[in-house]
Amino acid sequence: MNPPVSTQTFRAIDVIRKKRDGIELSGAEIQFLINAYTRDGIPDYQVSAWLMAVVLRGMTRAETAFLTDAMLHSGEVLDLSSLPAKKVDKHSTGGVGDKTSLVLAPLAAAAGVTVPMISGRGLGHTGGTLDKLEAIPGFNVNLTVEQFRRILEICGCAMIGQTAEIAPADRKLYALRDVTGTVESPSLICASIMSKKLAEGIDALVLDVKTGSGAFMKNENDAAFLAELMVETGERMGKQVVALITDMDQPLGKMVGNALEIVEVVEVLRGDGPEDLRKLCIELGGWMLHLGRVADSVDDGKKQSEKLIASGEALEKFCQMVELQGGDPRTIDDPKKLPQAQHTTTIYAVKNGYVVSLQCEQVGTACVILGGGRERKEDSVDAAVGIVLHKKVGDAVYLGEPMATVHYNAEARAEQAKRMIEESYRIEDSQPHEKRPLIHKVIGKSGEKN
Amino acid sequence: MNPPVSTQTFRAIDVIRKKRDGIELSGAEIQFLINAYTRDGIPDYQVSAWLMAVVLRGMTRAETAFLTDAMLHSGEVLDLSSLPAKKVDKHSTGGVGDKTSLVLAPLAAAAGVTVPMISGRGLGHTGGTLDKLEAIPGFNVNLTVEQFRRILEICGCAMIGQTAEIAPADRKLYALRDVTGTVESPSLICASIMSKKLAEGIDALVLDVKTGSGAFMKNENDAAFLAELMVETGERMGKQVVALITDMDQPLGKMVGNALEIVEVVEVLRGDGPEDLRKLCIELGGWMLHLGRVADSVDDGKKQSEKLIASGEALEKFCQMVELQGGDPRTIDDPKKLPQAQHTTTIYAVKNGYVVSLQCEQVGTACVILGGGRERKEDSVDAAVGIVLHKKVGDAVYLGEPMATVHYNAEARAEQAKRMIEESYRIEDSQPHEKRPLIHKVIGKSGEKN
Repeated sequence: MNPPVSTQTFRAIDVIRKKRDGIELSGAEIQFLINAYTRDGIPDYQVSAWLMAVVLRGMTRAETAFLTDAMLHSGEVLDLSSLPAKKVDKHSTGGVGDKTSLVLAPLAAAAGVTVPMISGRGLGHTGGTLDKLEAIPGFNVNLTVEQFRRILEICGCAMIGQTAEIAPADRKLYALRDVTGTVESPSLICASIMSKKLAEGIDALVLDVKTGSGAFMKNENDAAFLAELMVETGERMGKQVVALITDMDQPLGKMVGNALEIVEVVEVLRGDGPEDLRKLCIELGGWMLHLGRVADSVDDGKKQSEKLIASGEALEKFCQMVELQGGDPRTIDDPKKLPQAQHTTTIYAVKNGYVVSLQCEQVGTACVILGGGRERKEDSVDAAVGIVLHKKVGDAVYLGEPMATVHYNAEARAEQAKRMIEESYRIEDSQPHEKRPLIHKVIGKSGEKN
Repeated sequence: MNPPVSTQTFRAIDVIRKKRDGIELSGAEIQFLINAYTRDGIPDYQVSAWLMAVVLRGMTRAETAFLTDAMLHSGEVLDLSSLPAKKVDKHSTGGVGDKTSLVLAPLAAAAGVTVPMISGRGLGHTGGTLDKLEAIPGFNVNLTVEQFRRILEICGCAMIGQTAEIAPADRKLYALRDVTGTVESPSLICASIMSKKLAEGIDALVLDVKTGSGAFMKNENDAAFLAELMVETGERMGKQVVALITDMDQPLGKMVGNALEIVEVVEVLRGDGPEDLRKLCIELGGWMLHLGRVADSVDDGKKQSEKLIASGEALEKFCQMVELQGGDPRTIDDPKKLPQAQHTTTIYAVKNGYVVSLQCEQVGTACVILGGGRERKEDSVDAAVGIVLHKKVGDAVYLGEPMATVHYNAEARAEQAKRMIEESYRIEDSQPHEKRPLIHKVIGKSGEKN
């Protein structure tokens, strides 16, 4: 899929004009632009004009694949071919209470799949896997490529942050997109995600594309469009890719906040935990095991996943990874050893009825306000704060019953967060008419459709 | 028309997003963006993303007027109210052999109108009034505002380049548009032209919007759209504005090149010169005199213009202006005193027939190649070089007859230019079917439609 290596040079202005006029760019033109930008050969102001033209004119599937390829090859592509097992990763487009990565990496590794997972930080109202991992005292997400490879060899899974060597074009472009109103393009989102994931040296990828009030793609059609684009781009590059469109209209599980989510991850790995989270982990695990060639079918993969949880092997793998990455494994047996907020306050139901909706972005924003996420990039995160949701959509509530508990350290912030959470619950006299499915759709030709 | 002065501050990113999403911007938002950019409060990369969104989403008439106003007030607005006569200027969107400004400024001044003309340099294949004026030895286009005002008081007309104080936002924006593919927007073109012209402190403006193969707007509908936009924007700002859509499908007059065009200007001011150029000067002069309130109608203005040429008063005014701006007035009586090219070479007809077209942009580019224009901004211009067109569209030609003469200093460049000019002539057996009119349309409610 690599565009032909070209010694041709172009002028940035001509590439900008062509995109502005809605003409398809060649692989060589896209490669020129990305390579030159990565080595500071083109100024930001030209690239931002080009990005805006991409947002408004769109990109063809071929252009998107060329862009992904150029960004992927702007830096190091890990070569994990010395590891015999299939390398499979999972990526989520981001949500509230979405801690499946922390369950799935050890689960798939326990099944014999290698999971070289490079994750991100919280973005906007959504949580980030790295922030959650760092709630475990000592856990180090900043490994060198060599350390990463060694842990993968020993344990089968490792979870780190993006290194300077991986897709540097994406880091530069993302920072520019963030300040120029050019984030919202399916092609640019696809290239950003896929270039980083493909740089991990994986064979297959399971995408969890979120839709609903807590997702970046509120609308299911937009989510499906992005999912199809990512699947096709991955396939053009010779990878097996499947995308599940899953629900993010309310938070996933009951816990929102970094340390609290570690507690819930351990619950799921023990065979407990809330049903939606458990079910989604089994579903995604089924696909990872199937694409990783350790299960004949997705159903088989799901059965194996359930067994690996029941037997404790998945939890054991999690403990092994935590220890190898410098984390304190005692926190897994004793959640009290995780960061604890100084105070809690509870929200009570003010009438009888049923929860018909739970505005998800608002819950995520409440957690950011408590200090559990970042308002500015340079902010640090308070691992201890968060929200425990006792009631979710469809649940009956009675006057005076606890709805949610806010874990906080700063009084002033707690009041605002509490009010936001109260307002995010809608209680009515009868059950909601339609229950939103957890899995909306599966997209991709890789493997069977379950 | 000034947008309400606002102490509100906005975030550039929100203004970019709003335009990206096709939502109309308020006057305060546009004012914020332009003011902040002018004082370096917003980086180029944000403004270029916004400019691309403007190119692709367009602007409403109100937004265009707000933008023009913000750019106009980014610098000094000349106050010429102490001069009793009406202040009228003329602006052309640019063409090849278009030297009407040099006839019109002294002509209107001779009629009692004040003409405070701020002009530009050659751009692309088109010539620039300042470059033509500087072909006159000693002529100084870089006057201070005070010198400009003094010459206007004495002479009634003065012709200078843009000063640092006039519309600094336009200078910054224009440089950015030039390198980000965001030149081609009627709203941005309108705001750029009108902000500079309105900063001259004029009462009325005659626009000469070119259309045809040598114009920036090849297509008459595009030219008319831009003309209407500029007329409406000027009127919203309380000025009388009229726009003539005129032909630029072949060069205007017979001379192309800076010193050569001065020769042709003097010919017209003597009552000679080629018919198309003379006719257009009288037409535009008629409008300038009418809007300047020295003629009751455009027809009356045209008659007065003819008389001022016949009597020699217009030529006398030209000599006065040249002298006041430091130029050598002897060049007007004796064209040999203007810069002369070292060599000439002639193009002869290779068959009998009629000239059915004369590709105008190509002739302009040939002149640039000879050194008469700039390929890069920092290039200097050779005033002596150029082209004399002996045959124009509709003329009969006979085998071996001279078609055009190239005036050149560098042999290598002459060959290429000669070939381009040869190729720009199309000779056929019969006359062209339709003769393009010189004046395509008049747009604007100011004054009568003639």
